[in-house]
Amino acid sequence: MENRVNRQILLASRPAGMPTADNFKFVETEMPQPSEGEVLIRTLYLSVDPYMRGRMNDRKSYVPPFALNEVITGGVVGEVVESRAENFQAGDIVTGMLGWQLYSVARADEAGMGAIMKVDPRLAPVTTALGVLGIPGLTAYFGLYDIGQPKEGETVVVSGAAGAVGTIVCQLAKFKGCRVVGVAGSDEKNAYLRDELGVDATINYKTAGDVRAALQEACPNGVDVYFDNVGGEISDAVLLLIRSRARIIICGQISMYNQEQLDMGLRVQPLLLINSALMQGFIVTDYAPRFAEGIMQMGGWLAAGKLKYAEHIVEGFENTPQAFLGLFTGENLGKQLVKVAD
Amino acid sequence: MENRVNRQILLASRPAGMPTADNFKFVETEMPQPSEGEVLIRTLYLSVDPYMRGRMNDRKSYVPPFALNEVITGGVVGEVVESRAENFQAGDIVTGMLGWQLYSVARADEAGMGAIMKVDPRLAPVTTALGVLGIPGLTAYFGLYDIGQPKEGETVVVSGAAGAVGTIVCQLAKFKGCRVVGVAGSDEKNAYLRDELGVDATINYKTAGDVRAALQEACPNGVDVYFDNVGGEISDAVLLLIRSRARIIICGQISMYNQEQLDMGLRVQPLLLINSALMQGFIVTDYAPRFAEGIMQMGGWLAAGKLKYAEHIVEGFENTPQAFLGLFTGENLGKQLVKVAD
Repeated sequence: MENRVNRQILLASRPAGMPTADNFKFVETEMPQPSEGEVLIRTLYLSVDPYMRGRMNDRKSYVPPFALNEVITGGVVGEVVESRAENFQAGDIVTGMLGWQLYSVARADEAGMGAIMKVDPRLAPVTTALGVLGIPGLTAYFGLYDIGQPKEGETVVVSGAAGAVGTIVCQLAKFKGCRVVGVAGSDEKNAYLRDELGVDATINYKTAGDVRAALQEACPNGVDVYFDNVGGEISDAVLLLIRSRARIIICGQISMYNQEQLDMGLRVQPLLLINSALMQGFIVTDYAPRFAEGIMQMGGWLAAGKLKYAEHIVEGFENTPQAFLGLFTGENLGKQLVKVAD
Repeated sequence: MENRVNRQILLASRPAGMPTADNFKFVETEMPQPSEGEVLIRTLYLSVDPYMRGRMNDRKSYVPPFALNEVITGGVVGEVVESRAENFQAGDIVTGMLGWQLYSVARADEAGMGAIMKVDPRLAPVTTALGVLGIPGLTAYFGLYDIGQPKEGETVVVSGAAGAVGTIVCQLAKFKGCRVVGVAGSDEKNAYLRDELGVDATINYKTAGDVRAALQEACPNGVDVYFDNVGGEISDAVLLLIRSRARIIICGQISMYNQEQLDMGLRVQPLLLINSALMQGFIVTDYAPRFAEGIMQMGGWLAAGKLKYAEHIVEGFENTPQAFLGLFTGENLGKQLVKVAD
């Protein structure tokens, strides 16, 4: 520990609409010291995720708001550099909800959201703990299989299809023998979905013009399952095509996160009514008791080479806010990460 | 059969927006004759229901559209006047999806939607076969208990609370020990809900002014279950108050049935997302295999005097279209029926 200084990113102000760099503040603080039962962790990778935008508002969302002028918390993969807890030792790779900072201290016996877990770098690259084997992968797994219940031959539409969750959903739907239609915001993303992940049809919503017509062509039998990461007008277009007994999984609404006002658009109730359709919002922590099942399944498919994943890695702690902002302009293909240290 | 003439009401034209008397045409036709295996039924009571508005459009709804210039079909209670089928005899009281006409012929061995069933007038007034022990009652029973799953101490909001379905939903929710809040369109209806059915709080949406504020006052802990019969702005106001894991049952959208265009308003997806909430559209026939269970349960409560019901009976076949139109201006308290004959 030559360097006795920690660096942190604080929430300096709450964004109005789209966040900007000014909402974040870099500070230097004293290096934290682990007490008995705690470990000191050096950040290797930071996760930036769309849901964090919700926590920047001072209002109810799925998780409590971030406090102003405190370090922003999010998923981290790090290395234990000092352990004062029995079950961890220096050199262990761990993951947990830590901070946007170079070093974090965590209790070894914490449970639930505050827990840190060991990551075995021999099984999969450590970054997968923040992606396909972490929150995004579990979100895809439980959202699609538990709520969506896709059946062979059904049509599954995925919005935000090229994101951390969407790329996994597309593959899980293919595993079930579904026709999979991905909606994403660039031709490059769509080519990846088709060529690498086997998605049956894709729509570039930025260039398609009439998204509804494009969807209609891509879904000649209508839509049985819609995995929604984006909300807004894309979703309106999909919902007009749902079939009887359709299942709509509300996983994210990224197109709405920077809106200041209540979102007005197509009221879905009449469509749900005439189709006996289900729409279910969820957050992955609803499934916390089943995380082990999900990780085991996904880990098996990953080890077997059946499940692919994409990462979009920005280098350098100082670029964390920028990497976060890029989520809202669609910079990332797959999981957006910041590499902080080797 | 002195009178050899039948009278029928046909759909003369498809309504644009709110239906009018001009959309219906009265005709006289020859008295139908039952063939072998059929019965001739004299209509005693006709049911007029909001869902029938959907069938007047030439577009997909839960059931196929009515054909132009054909007799309108709907729930009927009638008396067998001539039977050429083994299992029925003259004098039997039956119910089924028959026509807006004085006499109908039905096959005795029909199954599913076309079936006729005997009604025992010693168990309950025959009109209950079209209300509390018929489609509206079963709709309330399966929608609330199967989708809504209300638990003791939860808050249940019911829109269209004074209608055929709503009055039953309010009582079924009270059976579970819930706080029940009813929304209806007149002080008279609301007094009935409170004084007769034990509803905890009511809102007259026509005079409340700020419906959202009134709901907030009536639901200090938020809304766990919303049984929606009406849609539109009332629903927007309710949905802003849902709690985590709320269940929203989309049973009807009567405020929308006469709209010509897609309904625009509050997009519910962000609210479902942050609350891990479920919204489910349904039609009672989704539960057809469980109808016997529902009728037995409801019949037991009715016989025990635990379950109450209200009927709004218009006299005279010629007033059928008017009774139907009254549904959309909220004329009825409880089940709207037309008495055609004694």
